[in-house]
Amino acid sequence: MKRNLHMRGAVIHAPGDVRVEERENPTIVAQTDAIIRVSAACVCGSDLWDYRGINEVKQPTPIGHEYVGVVTEIGDEVKNIGVGDFVVGSFMASDNTCEICEAGYQSRCAHVEFVGAGGAQAEYLRVPLADGTLVATPAMPDEDLIPSLLAASDVLGTGWFGAVAAEVGPGRTVAVVGDGAVGLLAILAAKQLGAERIIAMSRHASRQKLAREFGATDIVEERGDEGVARIKELTGGYGAHSVIEAVGTQESMMQAIRSARPGGHVGYVGVAHGVELPGEELFFAEVHLHGGPAPVRRFLPELIRLIWDRTIDPGKVFDLTLPLDEAAEGYKAMDERRAIKTLLKP
Amino acid sequence: MKRNLHMRGAVIHAPGDVRVEERENPTIVAQTDAIIRVSAACVCGSDLWDYRGINEVKQPTPIGHEYVGVVTEIGDEVKNIGVGDFVVGSFMASDNTCEICEAGYQSRCAHVEFVGAGGAQAEYLRVPLADGTLVATPAMPDEDLIPSLLAASDVLGTGWFGAVAAEVGPGRTVAVVGDGAVGLLAILAAKQLGAERIIAMSRHASRQKLAREFGATDIVEERGDEGVARIKELTGGYGAHSVIEAVGTQESMMQAIRSARPGGHVGYVGVAHGVELPGEELFFAEVHLHGGPAPVRRFLPELIRLIWDRTIDPGKVFDLTLPLDEAAEGYKAMDERRAIKTLLKP
Repeated sequence: MKRNLHMRGAVIHAPGDVRVEERENPTIVAQTDAIIRVSAACVCGSDLWDYRGINEVKQPTPIGHEYVGVVTEIGDEVKNIGVGDFVVGSFMASDNTCEICEAGYQSRCAHVEFVGAGGAQAEYLRVPLADGTLVATPAMPDEDLIPSLLAASDVLGTGWFGAVAAEVGPGRTVAVVGDGAVGLLAILAAKQLGAERIIAMSRHASRQKLAREFGATDIVEERGDEGVARIKELTGGYGAHSVIEAVGTQESMMQAIRSARPGGHVGYVGVAHGVELPGEELFFAEVHLHGGPAPVRRFLPELIRLIWDRTIDPGKVFDLTLPLDEAAEGYKAMDERRAIKTLLKP
Repeated sequence: MKRNLHMRGAVIHAPGDVRVEERENPTIVAQTDAIIRVSAACVCGSDLWDYRGINEVKQPTPIGHEYVGVVTEIGDEVKNIGVGDFVVGSFMASDNTCEICEAGYQSRCAHVEFVGAGGAQAEYLRVPLADGTLVATPAMPDEDLIPSLLAASDVLGTGWFGAVAAEVGPGRTVAVVGDGAVGLLAILAAKQLGAERIIAMSRHASRQKLAREFGATDIVEERGDEGVARIKELTGGYGAHSVIEAVGTQESMMQAIRSARPGGHVGYVGVAHGVELPGEELFFAEVHLHGGPAPVRRFLPELIRLIWDRTIDPGKVFDLTLPLDEAAEGYKAMDERRAIKTLLKP
């Protein structure tokens, strides 16, 4: 295959400064790698931690870790994925065979690598451990399925993990803290997992609307102690059975923990920033806490099936679509909360 | 029934100052109460927080919250427990009918009361919500069963909850942080729950011996980072599936969290003192965390059956038995770690 030495890709230079520029075209490094031509990528809430200067940007760095695309090249050891396959992958590369992967924690695989190190907001992307990381769709997808498949690579998989970590299921009342793409898709997940009642904690009209479309039965606009009091009111004074935390701040974590009933479950998927959990309060709260970087790979086969069957439409979270070259505007719109989530087309 | 207006009972006056003195004999306050003549009580690791001045002692306070005994009086609304029954109860009184109790979290019952407020290191004790709190044994127990039944009222039930919270089960490797009575009985619980391998973290010969009797397969003497490294070495580099924390300090909590593999479970039952959990480390550790005051009532029927059948002998944790009047020495011996746990006979 003949290919160019260079491609276009997004690079973050400093807080607020994302540029799409010429980058080296990725090549196979290990024989377990695949190269994909990116069909669609997007901007993640966690990219905004860099964009806002909360995570330090030390040098110009390729950015983006959500992707779907077509395989253009594979290493000699790749067996399950072939050139020409349309694939969805997690942001964490995993061998999918170690004990940790087998237990469903591919995001903490013994050989884990961050796929985003290659910068997925680009024309091409190298995906390590392709056999364990990528899942091929049954055929080339219709164009209108691409946003939903892209959502599966992170935000849907992350929201889904939040719901699973919070032990969402039939008969349970679920509260969701955070109305970003992950929080909204956690609502969709809770609905699919059979929750009886889903309370979205949101104060933005457009997000409330999408929350209801995805399955929210109640909206709570209050935050902090007032938000907790409202959740208690709605749950016979006990608190929710399951709470999904999808923000990652001290306030949101405490709001989540305090909204759960004793014996209840908190699933937290917002990347923690500056959070310190008070041990004594946690002890007497007597909740279950589980979370972390979502093992998206665990859920991908099922999520792809639900999207392929058009049972779910998580692609609705993309309310802004731009050509890759306009990535900077995509970041800006999310930072200013004009957009829930930006899809970029290389 | 004729009874005295006064009885003997332990009172903590200040750190290091526990006295057995004349106290008012308890009476029925609510019609759901029972009064028991205490057959045996004991000193808890958590009593030492007061004794050591880590919890403030503001005024002379009756102390003790572990008890077994014979019912001498019941309120008009008590239906399941009768005068003359030998009973075991939890340190937390619970109605055992609210939604939280039905989910197995009686220690956080909607109507919870701390039984220890009455001071169980005494001749008589008032137990609130008797129907929901006390469990009668099949008959009057043989004398040699009393220490084990007494252990069920807290330390066994707490260790058991730690093991259940850590999802101990067949095929799993379990690490236990803490070699006090609760840690030792968590080992016994792990064994009963089918753990494949049980690693006791202990550096005291007498406690190591009891740990092995209760089912420990390995002993790790190192603590902190070195202890964590040893657990990793023993578990193929991954960490334990289940870790039970039975101390409650910052060091022990971090040792427990770091000893668990990603996706593993930490059950924590040491009452947290001055613990602050770093959110980012917890996020990326990706463990399950669950714990708090043990809902001992959930487990009592099963624990009593195992003791009655002589399947387990948790009473072995008592290595010092004293008459109630010598309670002060019982505290001193535990504080100086000369005794694992002191049984007091009124």
